[in-house]
Amino acid sequence: MNRKEPAPRTRRSPEQVRTAVHQAVIDLLSAPEGEELNIPAIAQRAGVNHTSVYRRWGSLDALLADTVTTRLERDSPLNDTGSLRGDLIAWAEASVASMHTPQGRALVRAVILSMPSSTQTQSDRAGQFRRRMRSIEQIRERAVARGEDPPPLEEILDQLIAPFYIRTIFGIDLPATGYPELLVDRLLG
Amino acid sequence: MNRKEPAPRTRRSPEQVRTAVHQAVIDLLSAPEGEELNIPAIAQRAGVNHTSVYRRWGSLDALLADTVTTRLERDSPLNDTGSLRGDLIAWAEASVASMHTPQGRALVRAVILSMPSSTQTQSDRAGQFRRRMRSIEQIRERAVARGEDPPPLEEILDQLIAPFYIRTIFGIDLPATGYPELLVDRLLG
Repeated sequence: MNRKEPAPRTRRSPEQVRTAVHQAVIDLLSAPEGEELNIPAIAQRAGVNHTSVYRRWGSLDALLADTVTTRLERDSPLNDTGSLRGDLIAWAEASVASMHTPQGRALVRAVILSMPSSTQTQSDRAGQFRRRMRSIEQIRERAVARGEDPPPLEEILDQLIAPFYIRTIFGIDLPATGYPELLVDRLLG
Repeated sequence: MNRKEPAPRTRRSPEQVRTAVHQAVIDLLSAPEGEELNIPAIAQRAGVNHTSVYRRWGSLDALLADTVTTRLERDSPLNDTGSLRGDLIAWAEASVASMHTPQGRALVRAVILSMPSSTQTQSDRAGQFRRRMRSIEQIRERAVARGEDPPPLEEILDQLIAPFYIRTIFGIDLPATGYPELLVDRLLG
């Protein structure tokens, strides 16, 4: 957050522009002074013309959703620890570590702010949800391949993922130690 | 959501103005077409001059936070069912019912959008959180008075409240039946 000037408008590939715009979203969401999030501000920070951001993404909601899905896909897959319990604890440890960084909290804020709108169809919502849960689905698939019996995705959502989000929403600190194991043992209990 | 015109600018008490502004926030957040949420739009809908909204609340974040805290306080307390399990199930049933109305979902969206900002102090955040958890704290206090041993607030947050929020964030429907009992029995183990 040290440089405020837009990046120089050198020739960039569409993929580089996309990455720069996503990074600008995360930067603005992690700004300590709570900067306002809108497409002109994002475009300026990314060094992109705001009309091309509107043309490419259409709306702030769609841009937030694309940022989140891309970042979450980039962060998966996780290493195979050899067991369902180990994989889930590794996932939760990575989440705890991430929530202790401004960028990690910014990503969670972006997920929350890109809540599905009521105009989205049920199948759009379901597709977006599946893409975002890809790392958890991979953990479930590995467990099945080992002959383990993983809980349904919705149970993992309610008991393992939900606590991270609720604590971000209410600004409650995560317990310093033992939280990943606590949540996973409760889930598998 | 049928009337789009601002309310007539008759003489209203400060408390009536406050209620009208809160209602305008909820109305805009429950608009099916996903209207943009900003102070001028809220003021117009409430039939109030936007400068007085800025003067009274200072920012959209503060207005959202005040709306949420006021509404949640208004909705508590819940009836005493005679047991901790019964009270928690009643709380969860009321939450399920509320999430099936546009206004209930709008309130959850408002809670989520009024996430504490990084500029808020730890003690401001803690105070806001306690006010919002008042109905759950009342349930805990009644249980203690009966000689029951309720789980800590943070366990109730992670296991009972968090699932409602995560499903709103991801647009996942709540199970049609048995969900309140499932969550409460899991919590009370």
